[in-house]
Amino acid sequence: MMGSTHRWVMNARHEPLLLENFDALPPEAGEVVVKVAGCGVCHTDLGFFYDDVQTRHALPLALGHEISGRVVATADDTADWMDKAVIIPAVIPCGSCDACQRRRYAICPNQKMPGNDIQGGFATHVQVPAFGLCPVDEARLKDAGLELADVSVVADAVTTPYQAVVRSGLTTGDLAIVVGAGGVGGYTVQIANALGANVVAIDIDQEKLDVIRGFGAALTLNAKELAFPDLKKSVRNFARENGLRKTESIIFECSGSAAGQRTAYGLMTYGSTLCVIGFTMDKVEIRMSNLMAFDARMLGNWGCEPALYPAALDLVLDKRVQLLPFVERKPLEAINEVFDAVHDGRMTRRAILIPEAE
Amino acid sequence: MMGSTHRWVMNARHEPLLLENFDALPPEAGEVVVKVAGCGVCHTDLGFFYDDVQTRHALPLALGHEISGRVVATADDTADWMDKAVIIPAVIPCGSCDACQRRRYAICPNQKMPGNDIQGGFATHVQVPAFGLCPVDEARLKDAGLELADVSVVADAVTTPYQAVVRSGLTTGDLAIVVGAGGVGGYTVQIANALGANVVAIDIDQEKLDVIRGFGAALTLNAKELAFPDLKKSVRNFARENGLRKTESIIFECSGSAAGQRTAYGLMTYGSTLCVIGFTMDKVEIRMSNLMAFDARMLGNWGCEPALYPAALDLVLDKRVQLLPFVERKPLEAINEVFDAVHDGRMTRRAILIPEAE
Repeated sequence: MMGSTHRWVMNARHEPLLLENFDALPPEAGEVVVKVAGCGVCHTDLGFFYDDVQTRHALPLALGHEISGRVVATADDTADWMDKAVIIPAVIPCGSCDACQRRRYAICPNQKMPGNDIQGGFATHVQVPAFGLCPVDEARLKDAGLELADVSVVADAVTTPYQAVVRSGLTTGDLAIVVGAGGVGGYTVQIANALGANVVAIDIDQEKLDVIRGFGAALTLNAKELAFPDLKKSVRNFARENGLRKTESIIFECSGSAAGQRTAYGLMTYGSTLCVIGFTMDKVEIRMSNLMAFDARMLGNWGCEPALYPAALDLVLDKRVQLLPFVERKPLEAINEVFDAVHDGRMTRRAILIPEAE
Repeated sequence: MMGSTHRWVMNARHEPLLLENFDALPPEAGEVVVKVAGCGVCHTDLGFFYDDVQTRHALPLALGHEISGRVVATADDTADWMDKAVIIPAVIPCGSCDACQRRRYAICPNQKMPGNDIQGGFATHVQVPAFGLCPVDEARLKDAGLELADVSVVADAVTTPYQAVVRSGLTTGDLAIVVGAGGVGGYTVQIANALGANVVAIDIDQEKLDVIRGFGAALTLNAKELAFPDLKKSVRNFARENGLRKTESIIFECSGSAAGQRTAYGLMTYGSTLCVIGFTMDKVEIRMSNLMAFDARMLGNWGCEPALYPAALDLVLDKRVQLLPFVERKPLEAINEVFDAVHDGRMTRRAILIPEAE
């Protein structure tokens, strides 16, 4: 039924990922088997492979949590999903615990992340809970000039900032500031722009800034070239020149660096919202009482709840958020070379690994 | 009509406040004159008098922003307020600007704070905008065993944490942690308890902890005696023993100290909300990405919007929040001695200054 089933597993940190054949089991109740169309390579994967970050599932484990594909096997209670094109959420909540029943999906204690809690998407097939699967309209996909593999990155790189944007309450005419304009930050720029905000993008990489200027950033600022007071002044001038409010800026920290976090915090003003999307173990020193004096807030954002996936995907299918300029398809069997290339900074676009055709 | 009108004004930092007679002018459109029943002495007043904090209005200026009293003069458009017993909000938004129209009262750029932007309540009379005045039901006041002067502290010490509690979404059965259990923190304990939370109070002053145990703190922890890991463990044990959620604690930082902020931030867990109510210029070092990993948030809180005052006052009039054990009436003419006593830590209760009867 499924043809050859194999995956590339991590056996130990830094050791080459190895090809492993496995027998796809019939899905248990509530589960499906998805034939992988593509799986994006995220910095979280590199963290497991190159750094000290531990997977919650014991090794050997296939990494990969940005998965799109087609359902090829179902259980009795998931039969409606058969043959459907889907995106698998990067974080799959259980849907039934106390937290889920109160729509606090992000903190579901039973959540499953492929390539972390369960076998991931650097494989021909994955077995996952059906809860939260996002159906992909293949006619619209084709109209948008996309293949199913391309929307794999919606599973995390697009939806995570999408949830942050929704939670921030961002609306038409708002001033949005995105710190860290590559990868997730780039999609944050596109999403905020698509939803009507006036977007300032800040990075230390001029190349990334030049790219994102064509995709929704009305102003780009290089934090390597501008001292912080000048950066702040530039943002204020942008607001004034465009008739925007001086207050209530919505700031998205996507760099996952202490320097970026300091910049983001320092740009807060009266009524600001700072969305923390990027991750770093590093600490930063802040005047916490600014939050009180500014009546401002900080919103941490983990993953994206499944109910928001269709709207995020709509932005892509309606061509309001562009994927193709930011992704690059690579064959799955090149996974070790691709990991090294991403790690060494030799790939500027997000790699999507495509299992070989049978 | 108004009898003698005078106020105690600050001429310079550290110099004794001086008695000044003034002519109460007929209120302008939108304004009223309130005959002061009582005005609470807040640490913000001490900040202006003893520290480096600048008033926005030039000196000389009467301080004092926790005011209750009776309307004794009105303009044509405020005539309905005549003779009414009222509480004046500590922060009076204009009610008509762009921010106010979107209910962002806390960041109204035209907001007036008595004793900071305009002449304050250490006086026999104050002239203030009528917008946001909170009427006081004198029959209920009497039933509660209170005088009009007593509810002056509702203007800030009760309403500021009340807004923070409302914004946090706190509800029955939640775990609330209050860091800094005196003054504003004490009312935070009472309010959170009145709204059904299970409240842990943390302080470094055992006396304050002993008092607040009788007013809604189910557990008190002395941060001077417990190392942080033990503090954290005590909170977790409290949650377990009382069948509360391990996640989504709501933490109120009321100490306005770097140590308290570190404690409050360190106690955050999955889905936590940290409300920043206290103020300090000091900085703290934090791992900002914890907000992302925990899907948690921090909400800064400035003052309280006028629409919430009646509900906060209801808690007092219904005796669900006690004032009398925490306040002490003093004659207004003793203001200089009272300031010194509060500054030196010789008054454990909040002083309410009462103008002499005519």
